[in-house]
Amino acid sequence: MKPITTTTRYRVRYADTDQMGVVYYGNYARFYEIGRTEMIRELGMPYTELEAGGVMMPVYSVEAKYRDVIRYDELITIETMVTEMPAARMIFDHRILNGEGKVVHEARVVLVFLDMITHRPTRAPGRLVALLRD
Amino acid sequence: MKPITTTTRYRVRYADTDQMGVVYYGNYARFYEIGRTEMIRELGMPYTELEAGGVMMPVYSVEAKYRDVIRYDELITIETMVTEMPAARMIFDHRILNGEGKVVHEARVVLVFLDMITHRPTRAPGRLVALLRD
Amino acid sequence: MKPITTTTRYRVRYADTDQMGVVYYGNYARFYEIGRTEMIRELGMPYTELEAGGVMMPVYSVEAKYRDVIRYDELITIETMVTEMPAARMIFDHRILNGEGKVVHEARVVLVFLDMITHRPTRAPGRLVALLRD
Amino acid sequence: MKPITTTTRYRVRYADTDQMGVVYYGNYARFYEIGRTEMIRELGMPYTELEAGGVMMPVYSVEAKYRDVIRYDELITIETMVTEMPAARMIFDHRILNGEGKVVHEARVVLVFLDMITHRPTRAPGRLVALLRD
Repeated sequence: MKPITTTTRYRVRYADTDQMGVVYYGNYARFYEIGRTEMIRELGMPYTELEAGGVMMPVYSVEAKYRDVIRYDELITIETMVTEMPAARMIFDHRILNGEGKVVHEARVVLVFLDMITHRPTRAPGRLVALLRD
Repeated sequence: MKPITTTTRYRVRYADTDQMGVVYYGNYARFYEIGRTEMIRELGMPYTELEAGGVMMPVYSVEAKYRDVIRYDELITIETMVTEMPAARMIFDHRILNGEGKVVHEARVVLVFLDMITHRPTRAPGRLVALLRD
Repeated sequence: MKPITTTTRYRVRYADTDQMGVVYYGNYARFYEIGRTEMIRELGMPYTELEAGGVMMPVYSVEAKYRDVIRYDELITIETMVTEMPAARMIFDHRILNGEGKVVHEARVVLVFLDMITHRPTRAPGRLVALLRD
Repeated sequence: MKPITTTTRYRVRYADTDQMGVVYYGNYARFYEIGRTEMIRELGMPYTELEAGGVMMPVYSVEAKYRDVIRYDELITIETMVTEMPAARMIFDHRILNGEGKVVHEARVVLVFLDMITHRPTRAPGRLVALLRD
C-alpha cells in the first residue's frame, strides 16, 4: 500500500492544560484518537460503522516522545500516517505540530481488532483493507 | 429518614489542574461522583450492584458554587449528604473542604433512576430505600 | 445591549464518553468552555488577550440540566448566549443540540473577573464591554 | 542503588471509563502520575517541595502496553519501581494489577528535570538523590 496521511487541526482548551501551563501529558491520547478517527472517516469507514459491523479496536500499545510543550489556545496540527496494511493490528504514526508549525511530539499507537461479541482477536474488516489498498 | 452523611478524602493530581494552577472547574464532577459512590457503598449497596439489578442512575441536574480554589496536591474532603428519601430521583448535596478545612465548594447533584433495558424512569430500588430508612 | 449568540460545532470523542455509552456528565464543562471561548474570540478579544491584560475569569457557578444523552461521534452544536452587559461577572447561557438537532442540555455558567496579580475581583475590561456594546 | 518500589491502590471511577465499558487508554497517565507522586512522597520529598526548590519534572517519554482491560469500580494496584539513580532524567517503571491481582498493564515513563525559571535541563536535586541512595 501507499502510505496514507491525514491532517487534523485542534484548538487547545483550558481543559487540556495543567498547572505547568501546558497540555497535560495524558491528554495527548485525545489527539491520537482524533487523528486516527478522522483518518478512517476520510477513508470512508467511520469508526461507528466498524463497531456496527461487530469489530472494536482497543489500543494495544503507545510509544510517545514529548519534544516540546503545547500551550493553551494553540491551534495544533495532528498528522496521522498509516504505512502498513493492517492484519491483526493497525499501526498509526502521529506527529503533532504546535501553533508555529514546529514538530513537538511524536507517537506510535498500535490498535488490535477484536470481535465485539467474543472479545477475541479478529482480522481487519475486508472493507477497511480494500479502502486502504485503493 | 435521618440525614445521611459520608466523608471521603481525595488527593488532587496534576491531571485535575489547569493552567490557572488550580482544579479545572469541570473536574469537580469527579469529586461528586466519588462522594455519592462511596456513600452508597457504605450504605451496603455498591453502584455495581444497582446496575446488576437493572437500574442505572444518570445525572439529571447540577448546581454548583465555586467559592474558592483548590490547589495541586491538596488533600481535600468531600462531604456528601442525602436528606430526602429517593423516589423517582435522588438528591446529593456536596460540600468540599480544601486542605486547610475551609469550605470552598458546594453543589447539589440530582440523579434519576432508569431501567437499563427500556431506558424509562423507574423507582429507587426497594433495597436502597430500605438501607436509607434504617 | 442586544443579546449575542455564538454557535460552535463539536465532534464527540471516545475520551468524552463513559461506560453508559454516552458523554460523561463532567465533560459538558468542556463544551461550555468551547462555547464561551469561541464567542469572545468572535467578538474580537481572545481569552489569551484578556489574560495578557492581567485579567482572568474563573468560573463562579454552574447550573445545568441534562435533558437527554449525547452519544459517541455525534456532531453536536453548542449555542452560547450573553444577554447582560458584564460588570463584576459575566453570564453565559448554553444550549446543546445533539446530532439530530434536538436540545438535550441547558446550562448557565457565571464567571467573575479577577486581577491576575492580586486575585481580587475587578471589573470587565473596557475593551470587552465596548465590543459587546457594538 | 537498590531498586525502590511503591504500591498504591486506586478505585476506578465512571470518569475513567469510556463507552467500551473499560478505562479509556488516555486515563492510564493518571495512574502513572499517582504512582510516581506517591513514591517520592514516601521517600520524603513530595513533588510540591521539588517545585518549591525551583525544579519541575515534565514527562519526556511514555512506552505502554495494554495487556488486558480495567473495569469500572475495580480496586487496582499501581506498582511503581525506580532502578536507576536519576541524573538528567528519572525512569519510572509501572505495573498495574486489576481487581483480581492480574498484571494488565505495563509502562515506562521517563521524566526530565528542568529549572523552573530558565526551563533548561538541570540535574536531579541532591536531596532526592540522597533519599534514593539511602
